[in-house]
Amino acid sequence: MTAANSSFELHPQLAKDTLLVTDLALCRVLLMNDARYPWCILVPRIPDAREIFDLPASIQTDLWREVSLCAQRLSMLTKAGKMNVATLGNLVPQLHIHVIARNAGDAAWPQPVWGKGEPQPYTTRAATRQVEALQLTFAR
Amino acid sequence: MTAANSSFELHPQLAKDTLLVTDLALCRVLLMNDARYPWCILVPRIPDAREIFDLPASIQTDLWREVSLCAQRLSMLTKAGKMNVATLGNLVPQLHIHVIARNAGDAAWPQPVWGKGEPQPYTTRAATRQVEALQLTFAR
Repeated sequence: MTAANSSFELHPQLAKDTLLVTDLALCRVLLMNDARYPWCILVPRIPDAREIFDLPASIQTDLWREVSLCAQRLSMLTKAGKMNVATLGNLVPQLHIHVIARNAGDAAWPQPVWGKGEPQPYTTRAATRQVEALQLTFAR
Repeated sequence: MTAANSSFELHPQLAKDTLLVTDLALCRVLLMNDARYPWCILVPRIPDAREIFDLPASIQTDLWREVSLCAQRLSMLTKAGKMNVATLGNLVPQLHIHVIARNAGDAAWPQPVWGKGEPQPYTTRAATRQVEALQLTFAR
């Protein structure tokens, strides 16, 4: 039994900015289309979710388990020095959690990534490679 | 039984930037000394913790429960439009989680708060009032 709901629809801004990686039990996993950072976004497939603390406790637990899994797998895949995990939602109200692999010397280091410079979309080949690598790491 | 450890020491940068609110079972709750935003920081009292996904699953659950509690209470206290929750750690390696009450029109809105302008320390009276209000809300 999962809380994910078939009537869920991804916010158009998230759909525009990302590539689909996979669906976990609760969350849709997306890759931010910005080659400057390995950057996933997890969106629980629950209509109208906005704040994590408004979700039932058991769903919060499932959500954080998937966020931790994503952070761990992305960290292993990228050998990143630091993982940044955040839920902001100031611009896009649909609840979503950023999981970003950071390294000393990356485009925004040591500041957070938001609002720093312009996104650099992946080439088609690089996007396919990155999505497939993530799909493989989640399939393990 | 708690994972919090008496040999835990708060990172000097966090000690410098914050005021003590209270100790929950796992986390120390701090108030960022920046009157521009109601902004708590939770630090699990576990020596050498850096990444959440490196903690045992049961401690991760406890940690997120306290983060959610803090976000919910700070949201109620401030009637904020949005809560931002993040663990970054690019500058201060000790694991800590930001819980920030945001409102349209605040000093950094709609961007994240980090690296925007200069902190505005509370007056002594305002600091005491804010800390006491938070202590009351956690005591409920």
